[in-house]
Amino acid sequence: MAGNTFGQVFRVTTWGESHGKAIGVVIDGCPPGLSLSESDIQQDLDRRRPQDAPVSTPRREPDKVEVLSGTFEGMTTGTPISLIIYNKDVDSRAYETMKDAFRPGHGDFTYQKKYGIRDYRGGGRASGRETAARVAAGAIARKLLDQEGITVRAYTLELAGVRVEQVDLDVIDKNPFLAPDLDAVSQIEERIEEIKEAGDSAGGIVEVVVRGCPAGLGEPVFDKLDAELAKGVMSIGAVKGVEIGVGLAAARMLGSECNDEITPEGFVTNRSGGILAGISNGDEIVVRAAVKPISSIEKEQRTVDINMKPTTISVKGRHDVSAVPRIVPVCEAMVRLVIVDHLLRQRTIPFQGA
Amino acid sequence: MAGNTFGQVFRVTTWGESHGKAIGVVIDGCPPGLSLSESDIQQDLDRRRPQDAPVSTPRREPDKVEVLSGTFEGMTTGTPISLIIYNKDVDSRAYETMKDAFRPGHGDFTYQKKYGIRDYRGGGRASGRETAARVAAGAIARKLLDQEGITVRAYTLELAGVRVEQVDLDVIDKNPFLAPDLDAVSQIEERIEEIKEAGDSAGGIVEVVVRGCPAGLGEPVFDKLDAELAKGVMSIGAVKGVEIGVGLAAARMLGSECNDEITPEGFVTNRSGGILAGISNGDEIVVRAAVKPISSIEKEQRTVDINMKPTTISVKGRHDVSAVPRIVPVCEAMVRLVIVDHLLRQRTIPFQGA
Amino acid sequence: MAGNTFGQVFRVTTWGESHGKAIGVVIDGCPPGLSLSESDIQQDLDRRRPQDAPVSTPRREPDKVEVLSGTFEGMTTGTPISLIIYNKDVDSRAYETMKDAFRPGHGDFTYQKKYGIRDYRGGGRASGRETAARVAAGAIARKLLDQEGITVRAYTLELAGVRVEQVDLDVIDKNPFLAPDLDAVSQIEERIEEIKEAGDSAGGIVEVVVRGCPAGLGEPVFDKLDAELAKGVMSIGAVKGVEIGVGLAAARMLGSECNDEITPEGFVTNRSGGILAGISNGDEIVVRAAVKPISSIEKEQRTVDINMKPTTISVKGRHDVSAVPRIVPVCEAMVRLVIVDHLLRQRTIPFQGA
Amino acid sequence: MAGNTFGQVFRVTTWGESHGKAIGVVIDGCPPGLSLSESDIQQDLDRRRPQDAPVSTPRREPDKVEVLSGTFEGMTTGTPISLIIYNKDVDSRAYETMKDAFRPGHGDFTYQKKYGIRDYRGGGRASGRETAARVAAGAIARKLLDQEGITVRAYTLELAGVRVEQVDLDVIDKNPFLAPDLDAVSQIEERIEEIKEAGDSAGGIVEVVVRGCPAGLGEPVFDKLDAELAKGVMSIGAVKGVEIGVGLAAARMLGSECNDEITPEGFVTNRSGGILAGISNGDEIVVRAAVKPISSIEKEQRTVDINMKPTTISVKGRHDVSAVPRIVPVCEAMVRLVIVDHLLRQRTIPFQGA
Repeated sequence: MAGNTFGQVFRVTTWGESHGKAIGVVIDGCPPGLSLSESDIQQDLDRRRPQDAPVSTPRREPDKVEVLSGTFEGMTTGTPISLIIYNKDVDSRAYETMKDAFRPGHGDFTYQKKYGIRDYRGGGRASGRETAARVAAGAIARKLLDQEGITVRAYTLELAGVRVEQVDLDVIDKNPFLAPDLDAVSQIEERIEEIKEAGDSAGGIVEVVVRGCPAGLGEPVFDKLDAELAKGVMSIGAVKGVEIGVGLAAARMLGSECNDEITPEGFVTNRSGGILAGISNGDEIVVRAAVKPISSIEKEQRTVDINMKPTTISVKGRHDVSAVPRIVPVCEAMVRLVIVDHLLRQRTIPFQGA
Repeated sequence: MAGNTFGQVFRVTTWGESHGKAIGVVIDGCPPGLSLSESDIQQDLDRRRPQDAPVSTPRREPDKVEVLSGTFEGMTTGTPISLIIYNKDVDSRAYETMKDAFRPGHGDFTYQKKYGIRDYRGGGRASGRETAARVAAGAIARKLLDQEGITVRAYTLELAGVRVEQVDLDVIDKNPFLAPDLDAVSQIEERIEEIKEAGDSAGGIVEVVVRGCPAGLGEPVFDKLDAELAKGVMSIGAVKGVEIGVGLAAARMLGSECNDEITPEGFVTNRSGGILAGISNGDEIVVRAAVKPISSIEKEQRTVDINMKPTTISVKGRHDVSAVPRIVPVCEAMVRLVIVDHLLRQRTIPFQGA
Repeated sequence: MAGNTFGQVFRVTTWGESHGKAIGVVIDGCPPGLSLSESDIQQDLDRRRPQDAPVSTPRREPDKVEVLSGTFEGMTTGTPISLIIYNKDVDSRAYETMKDAFRPGHGDFTYQKKYGIRDYRGGGRASGRETAARVAAGAIARKLLDQEGITVRAYTLELAGVRVEQVDLDVIDKNPFLAPDLDAVSQIEERIEEIKEAGDSAGGIVEVVVRGCPAGLGEPVFDKLDAELAKGVMSIGAVKGVEIGVGLAAARMLGSECNDEITPEGFVTNRSGGILAGISNGDEIVVRAAVKPISSIEKEQRTVDINMKPTTISVKGRHDVSAVPRIVPVCEAMVRLVIVDHLLRQRTIPFQGA
Repeated sequence: MAGNTFGQVFRVTTWGESHGKAIGVVIDGCPPGLSLSESDIQQDLDRRRPQDAPVSTPRREPDKVEVLSGTFEGMTTGTPISLIIYNKDVDSRAYETMKDAFRPGHGDFTYQKKYGIRDYRGGGRASGRETAARVAAGAIARKLLDQEGITVRAYTLELAGVRVEQVDLDVIDKNPFLAPDLDAVSQIEERIEEIKEAGDSAGGIVEVVVRGCPAGLGEPVFDKLDAELAKGVMSIGAVKGVEIGVGLAAARMLGSECNDEITPEGFVTNRSGGILAGISNGDEIVVRAAVKPISSIEKEQRTVDINMKPTTISVKGRHDVSAVPRIVPVCEAMVRLVIVDHLLRQRTIPFQGA
């Protein structure tokens, strides 16, 4: 009800504020018998960590995860898995200036309206930091999907106006933008540097591809696989649009252009993005998320204070130029959570007694 | 779990197949004391009914709704409201030819994979007919929103490649395409006619605008208002993309272009589409859905039969050229359901004892 | 949220008022491929029907069920199954006198307090009639359990102070009290007749036994199998107490008396009632429900009217002397719903990739 | 789905094993603006702590709770509240002997059957230790209920065959058995000592009384207030029976004896236990739980090992003679959780726009 839980069988509940004691996640419904260690999860968190790139914030988050429950002798037991990441490098002073002024484009205003109180330090619960808990849960989902031969990979498709021209999954982790095209990297770097100089920020597009997903996942009519993917991806702070397969382009296609013909060898094309009538068709699932530029910018902007009096704000301090590289693993995690959840839901479908 | 229920407080469960005895919906959680008659619901269903336009199917669906429970002397009582629409004009013969061949772009293939059995007549549960139940539930949501001064209006923003140039809500119901711009109508008509001649189909874009929504709706972090809207809209069969506010354009904006500055009079712009950090900010909420062309086309396409043997298919019979005009009221209904649900969820937030 | 749905995978939503147009139920999550006809369900409803016995009301309810969706050519398809029972023999005049006075022991007072409005005719939603919908859903659960070799049988253990002395499942349907002991029947009859003469009503105890249930069902820690059974059975209007296995007697036992020792052949005793730590142990599951006497009695009682003014009430008309025989199939249905739901939930547990 | 979450609006998710690193709980849906400190919660945990009495285990559990999220400057913010209790005094050696043998009356056998793996140390997840997390969550519920003028008090009604003869709430915390009758204490002590000598254990009954609960809480038809209370209380490990109001005695009453007449001053009697048709009627809510004797006893019992080979077991070590005093605060906590949840659910009912 209060929205901090995702999934129906593989249920993920995150908690924690950016500048509180810790953040964490409880995963309820993970099948027993899965080998799981802290390092399995740490490797996914490390990928999300700020890297030595102009796009990223200088804040050094150790993001050291601990497994507090749900495993025994290195195996999951079917009981809730509790993961915790203590907040170490917390400097709230920079945020004191934001205590009373609402940052444009941020949740400051809406949290205040909703709850009448907010932890303004570092964005509190609305901070991107909350997504570390999602990535941690997503690492467990990844291990489950590995067993089923399903891989989920996300990458930067476009950043600061530069679109990649090829997709080479092997190079994603070899550049700070998590782009699948090294040729695009220098262009992105250049553009990011300009924007940084201008005290501004940049948006982009993340693409996620799922391979090896069996046909049959997704629940008509409201919990369609694409509906759940849309929810999962749109629940990431900065995302303003979600596409499946050809996405928005579908609006300008003819039926004969958009349908994927079928042959005994499989679908001839994949405009559907691997989902038909909300159910996976066995083809690659393709999801894209449009990410808005980071709201916290140095450029001065008009806003109001907590008493609705006019003021201006210039957000200084440790801020990324673009959230896109950090959102890549979060999109990956959310898609994994959706796929694992539906894989487990699908197990209740076959009528085994028949 | 099986996906036929939407909402947490205002819970809507739809049931029924296109060519079964009836379709219907149970609404659990509607507050008591709301004046409600069958004609309140009928007027929304009538809007969805095929009209005398080239875009629509000649099937005459009476779509006569009956209220079976949950009201007493014309008022809701707080108990479940059961609505039923009997299927009258059902001619399944045309569908016999599709019994064994999977229509490209349809759920035929995926339902078969998921369940091992399917009601192939008229698309069964995957038929657009299911959405009549959503529209019926949406009519009750509309009545609740009226009381709160919230209006939700949807219209065709683009159809068959023709984009409207102005938005006049008063003309939406005066043209068969539910377009808010009468100047665009003749162009659309012309284009639709050509596509029909070619045995093909067309996509488009639906836009939904919510006015009067208070700030504070939406639950961080997973049940953000935009995440739920995305799910609700993406759960409509033909939708392949969802945007909030500036949507995909956000990817190419700078922070200074995308942020909405705030003044004591309110937000200067509305690029956010009325939602910040997943919570409504009091401004207009703007959602767009990209609708793919109808999959059932007369143009011959390659496919396989139930034994995965190659064949071809040409879908004749009573089919729309575009689903867009029918999807307009469905988008409207889904957005209403999300808003009402979150309005009721928000009532659990304030700490009244403090 | 509003409480008209039961179960997590096998989800049952009931609707309808005693004197409304119809009552019904939507079952979402029934596996596909189950053979299902209206007569399968009708036979369970017929068992619940008033019989020619002094215990029962003379109202002739045809309780004719119709399957409106979810099956195709006699098989379930995995889509929601909608069942409807039209209310035919409805005479609301007798209830007009109760319009303003709250019947002691009834929901009249609390519905009014909760909703500020109520359908007072025949108890409205609070009527025992609602349980016909549960029995209908339970019939589908029965068919699924049959396939798994699980049987659920309920019977009258005690009625009007007369306790059965033996349990012969074969005679349950051969007497109007659904007692498993024909010797007890004449005693019960006699006692019921006396109570009827006195314008009063009687309580009793229903026992339910589940055979063939595999070990492993039930979800720690809150959704324990016994916790869910307690909820399911306590959700039946007149039930005031629920016991598992030795039940309340456990409070006076020593550990050495209460524990069930284990041998390679199985448990030596079954004081636990087939459930350990909330999970089925493979033994017989035993549940008992204490049923209070029917609240509507002819004996005059003090009460207040809708304006809280004192008055008296004597409920005349068609009322049972005891609800026990009607509650027997309802208990059976609720236990079936719990077992089926947990059977399906258990399918998500094994880690198949390991 | 996996059962570690309780409640719909005030959602409580517990995690942790008896001999793992820590146990904890995440509370999602707590209203903002509630003053909350660690000492508020600690006082409830302290009550649950083993005391210097023969009934209790010598294990010294510090049970020091930490609040990790969800509060800001001493107030709740509406975001998830994460509580952690590190396990400090953990000596698993005593449990090594139980690694392979299933203790009769315990979850050892059923966990193994359900999951194929189990953390056998100290009962793992099935340990009573898990209930500390419930008590911690219950303390927050208590603070909310305080604001509404609702008090929930539990006490030992019967222990080891000794029933209290009077209920004086003031003395509950002045004796190690949490009995409301000091005269009964010496009898209980004596009886407990005898049972301890015999290497055996004892059961009893816990009673919970709710005062100040407004009429109108509880959701027909499945989520009746009594049904939810039954589930909540039965979800406590050792509980085998639940009663509301007169409970099982209702089975032998006549309607005229069981109904509570109503006068302008209120209900004349309270046989219903404050709940009519599943909805609170404004009177005192009375719930009783029958607690079985602790399963771990020193007396030798027959059992089987993990390979189903016969063996015997005598459970030595730090075990209580009766779980009843420890279960008293857990029952209190569960009832509080149910009442708070339904209080918040009730807020979605009134139709404010009418």
